[in-house]
Amino acid sequence: MPASVKALGQARPSGASMAPQARCCSPAALQRRLPILAWLPDYSLEWLKLDFIAGLSVGLTVIPQALAYAEVAGLPPQYGLYSAFMGCFVYFFLGTSRDVTLGPTAIMSLLVSFYTFHEPAYAVLLAFLSGCIQLAMGFLRLGFLLDFISCPVIKGFTSAATITIGFGQIKNLLGLQGVPRQFFLQVYHTFRNIGDTRVGDAVLGLVCMVLLLVLKLMRDHVPPVHPEMPPGVRLSHGLVWTATTARNALVVSFAALVAYSFEVTGHQPFVLTGQTAQGLPPVRLPPFSVTTANRTISFSELVQDMGAGLAVVPLMGLLESIAVAKSFASQNNYRIDANQELLAIGLTNVLGSFVSSYPVTGSFGRTAVNAQSGVCTPAGGLVTGVLVLLALDYLTALFRYIPKSALAAVIIMAVAPLFDAGIFRTLWRVKSTCVLARHTHAPRTLPTVFRDLRGTVAAGGLDLLPLCVTFMLCFWEVQYGILAGTLLSALMLLHSVARPKMQVSEGPVLVLQPASGLHFPAVEALREATLSRALEALPPRCAVLDCTHVCSIDYTVVLGLQGLLGDFQRHGVTLAFVGLQVPVLRVLLSADLKGAQYFSTLEEAEKYLRQEPGPQPYNASEASVPEHKVALLKA
Amino acid sequence: MPASVKALGQARPSGASMAPQARCCSPAALQRRLPILAWLPDYSLEWLKLDFIAGLSVGLTVIPQALAYAEVAGLPPQYGLYSAFMGCFVYFFLGTSRDVTLGPTAIMSLLVSFYTFHEPAYAVLLAFLSGCIQLAMGFLRLGFLLDFISCPVIKGFTSAATITIGFGQIKNLLGLQGVPRQFFLQVYHTFRNIGDTRVGDAVLGLVCMVLLLVLKLMRDHVPPVHPEMPPGVRLSHGLVWTATTARNALVVSFAALVAYSFEVTGHQPFVLTGQTAQGLPPVRLPPFSVTTANRTISFSELVQDMGAGLAVVPLMGLLESIAVAKSFASQNNYRIDANQELLAIGLTNVLGSFVSSYPVTGSFGRTAVNAQSGVCTPAGGLVTGVLVLLALDYLTALFRYIPKSALAAVIIMAVAPLFDAGIFRTLWRVKSTCVLARHTHAPRTLPTVFRDLRGTVAAGGLDLLPLCVTFMLCFWEVQYGILAGTLLSALMLLHSVARPKMQVSEGPVLVLQPASGLHFPAVEALREATLSRALEALPPRCAVLDCTHVCSIDYTVVLGLQGLLGDFQRHGVTLAFVGLQVPVLRVLLSADLKGAQYFSTLEEAEKYLRQEPGPQPYNASEASVPEHKVALLKA
Repeated sequence: MPASVKALGQARPSGASMAPQARCCSPAALQRRLPILAWLPDYSLEWLKLDFIAGLSVGLTVIPQALAYAEVAGLPPQYGLYSAFMGCFVYFFLGTSRDVTLGPTAIMSLLVSFYTFHEPAYAVLLAFLSGCIQLAMGFLRLGFLLDFISCPVIKGFTSAATITIGFGQIKNLLGLQGVPRQFFLQVYHTFRNIGDTRVGDAVLGLVCMVLLLVLKLMRDHVPPVHPEMPPGVRLSHGLVWTATTARNALVVSFAALVAYSFEVTGHQPFVLTGQTAQGLPPVRLPPFSVTTANRTISFSELVQDMGAGLAVVPLMGLLESIAVAKSFASQNNYRIDANQELLAIGLTNVLGSFVSSYPVTGSFGRTAVNAQSGVCTPAGGLVTGVLVLLALDYLTALFRYIPKSALAAVIIMAVAPLFDAGIFRTLWRVKSTCVLARHTHAPRTLPTVFRDLRGTVAAGGLDLLPLCVTFMLCFWEVQYGILAGTLLSALMLLHSVARPKMQVSEGPVLVLQPASGLHFPAVEALREATLSRALEALPPRCAVLDCTHVCSIDYTVVLGLQGLLGDFQRHGVTLAFVGLQVPVLRVLLSADLKGAQYFSTLEEAEKYLRQEPGPQPYNASEASVPEHKVALLKA
Repeated sequence: MPASVKALGQARPSGASMAPQARCCSPAALQRRLPILAWLPDYSLEWLKLDFIAGLSVGLTVIPQALAYAEVAGLPPQYGLYSAFMGCFVYFFLGTSRDVTLGPTAIMSLLVSFYTFHEPAYAVLLAFLSGCIQLAMGFLRLGFLLDFISCPVIKGFTSAATITIGFGQIKNLLGLQGVPRQFFLQVYHTFRNIGDTRVGDAVLGLVCMVLLLVLKLMRDHVPPVHPEMPPGVRLSHGLVWTATTARNALVVSFAALVAYSFEVTGHQPFVLTGQTAQGLPPVRLPPFSVTTANRTISFSELVQDMGAGLAVVPLMGLLESIAVAKSFASQNNYRIDANQELLAIGLTNVLGSFVSSYPVTGSFGRTAVNAQSGVCTPAGGLVTGVLVLLALDYLTALFRYIPKSALAAVIIMAVAPLFDAGIFRTLWRVKSTCVLARHTHAPRTLPTVFRDLRGTVAAGGLDLLPLCVTFMLCFWEVQYGILAGTLLSALMLLHSVARPKMQVSEGPVLVLQPASGLHFPAVEALREATLSRALEALPPRCAVLDCTHVCSIDYTVVLGLQGLLGDFQRHGVTLAFVGLQVPVLRVLLSADLKGAQYFSTLEEAEKYLRQEPGPQPYNASEASVPEHKVALLKA
């Protein structure tokens, strides 16, 4: 059955019926591509009620967040709302998770601010191109590429982004003016101008943050409404639940009301959001060229200007979206189809770019709101989308009264949970290990520092290096951070493949056992190790290569082994193989290695090589392969 | 002891004494950096005699080859000789193999012709920069990077280069004029102009080829001179040996003599080499900028023009040189130090560029001549170098009489042995497998073709794909061929790491065993496989993850396993581990995975999970680790 059906059906008591296993034949395949077909026929009134409440909760969260994230992206506030509804409608048809909501997120907004120079035209074009790239990846089933972005890289990036976004709001919280957007300059100017703090903004911002925090704590501790509760308790619980779930909307409305009251009195102590374009966004093609006062910027120039953003934005968008979907799928016991998710997010970005959306992805915070509100199907997104459209149509005139410090409070409270304090503990541990090492080892040179560091990395089991590199570089340029971290992970991976651990047991017969696979870059190292230990001993000794952990070998490895066998023969000693898995044996047989001998067990090999009486080796020619292996080979 | 000492001492009866093991302390380290210090103190008269003969033989080979290879590189003939002596002198001090001779080679000349536009200034600068890159790689011990160029890539490149070089000489052999250098154009124009063949050149070229072939066959069948032979036999054998070893010089001299005789009669039926610059090359800095008639080309422009050549030339140079050294070290039972070889070749190129050399590397053919002549130490190179210098000083006037077709014959006979006909057999086998598949499978669509091809690749154990890609693309642009082949190899490697084979045994308890290591890109696939097989069954069943072949895990894998354990717990079933190697267990313990249980053997695990009475699991907290494992963990 399609994963979505099960996903939607399993966790709710009134589960949807199970569809037949999806093959390449038409109805099941169509259901896999359009998961809505799987759950819509079973849609019930009870689900509708729950979906409606959840959609409303998410809508009341996304409206203030969208205004705030547009500020992070460096775009006019309405662009946040333009980006917030298309995902709901597309995901209604294509989504395989009931919880996920697509829309503007803090991290994606930060990335957009890096690559679009605060120009809406760039942002909309970036959404279109990112969507195309994501769709292509979905159709070509390239989702596996995301596996190569390792967890340390994601953690390093997320933590750096959290700090960048959070710190970026300090200036709005304090009402500081003229602070640049580059992180290091921002830190410098924020602290330099801290004396210019506007009391009104700072007080309002802090009050909003405290309110949000209190409401969030209440949310976490008030039990959900149960039908068994007495009506009065149910009502009060319901009220608290609504207030805490829609806390962003509540706090922002409160702040706007305060600002409006001051406006009426003629004195405005807050920096306000200001005029917002009214009404729904126009439906039109994304801008493939931009005409400014003096000249026209062509499509290829636009693309060149965005540069690495065209790789970073789609990839990180997919990564965030799939990470969110997997996380909630795991929590709520259903499966998602990663490639289908790629298609959903890609189509959202492409269609979104026709209504002036900037790139969107799955939002962790709002998906949590959705799940906690008890959403049953992606239909909840319809309510959210309609709410955003209504807000755009009727409320934009009111948005100008929202103080920027209130939005800053919303952002800071939204990104704070993403920050992983463990990173600093880990960094601290490395530092203390180095300090500790300084006390124990007397002479302190650069190599010893490196050795200690390497020891710590090896012992901790944490991939500290890519984490630290990504974290540090992301403050400079996000793409360099992610690229460097990913390359470092890949290099560490290739290094472990090229220099596999080798278990060596010395003795009259040398036994070498690669601790894991044996891939082509490793064969030279294996040959060196064997030569230096077996043939440079006086007298040269026989060796056994225990291939228990080797599941496949390629041409380069075969050539290397051939060379090794030749070396042993010239020295008049023997190299024997044991523990050959069937595919390896098959390759060795077909390569017709001269003088290759192999045994079933290590004991037999050692006995034979010590020239004690016992079983004889099998030679690597098909005639002498033991019966059961021949049978396997013929299979 | 340093590898070189042993190398030089072991194979000859009068072995050099053994030096103490090389540590970072001074004399041994110095000996490792300057291998001459290891063998010079033991130098004997007998060695001198053998080295002198070998050096002479190599010298008589290199002089005609150098003139010919300069033609391949598209440079005036003297540049071949300029490139032929510095390697001998540098290797005398730094070499760790007694057999290797550095100098111009066919393949390196072909590469030089691609990247230097037949301009000596570019070629000399390329030698300098390549040398610097090689030296840097040697000092940074980056030699392991060469391991990532797999054998199929090397074979594909070598075979393509052999065809390109060999075919490029057909025009000289036939005396055709005005044939362009680009391979495909060359093929077209050669066949189009075949009617213009000059009879004199063609006859002379073919005669030279036959002569070279006959002499080579004689060389392979005449036994070397033994002291026990009667003096007459010894003399005749010695004569034959000299003639066959110096066959290139002999044939070229013969052809030049023929041409000179015609010149004296006033009729010249051959295309001659023409005027060659006389005398030794000037010693001067390599050209960091070039001034032509109309403008000066700056250093950065020169570098930009050479482009990918700055990566391809140094890397292929190292590869060729180390392959040659390793091959002869293995044949003659000694060890080379790969990083020291990098330094030797790098320094040769840097110093060579001061005497107008183009990039050089280890020559397979001349190294074979050297070894067969019984060379004892790199001192043989001194003789070769001096011979080249003498030729430059006194013979250049005579070189103008050498017919081009004779040099073409020398080149063709030199590159022919490098061609690997096996490639075509392999390609043929793929084709016939596909044809065979066409007969057995009825419907024939593109996917089935791909599947057959993949089956062939998997079954043959040959990495056909990188081989074919490299072979084909090298005709178009060498760097693309090598790059594409290497990337393809790396991708195939990464794919096998990201999607490792998994042995699955179904039953009341699911048992999954990764067939090789478990690296971070694989963890998502593992999780998917386990979830879909264990938890989507009805009812969900317990699973055992058999980590026998896993020797290390990283942070991403730990997080993935943590998620998997959570998934199992939510379904009320158990995931147990067996076969944990000590490093893996240590990481799991330090990560403090909740609910992780492991067993010593698969049987125990299955028994426990089937809720039969038997041993209890160890929980992954240090208190319950069995005694012997704790001891290992503390170690």
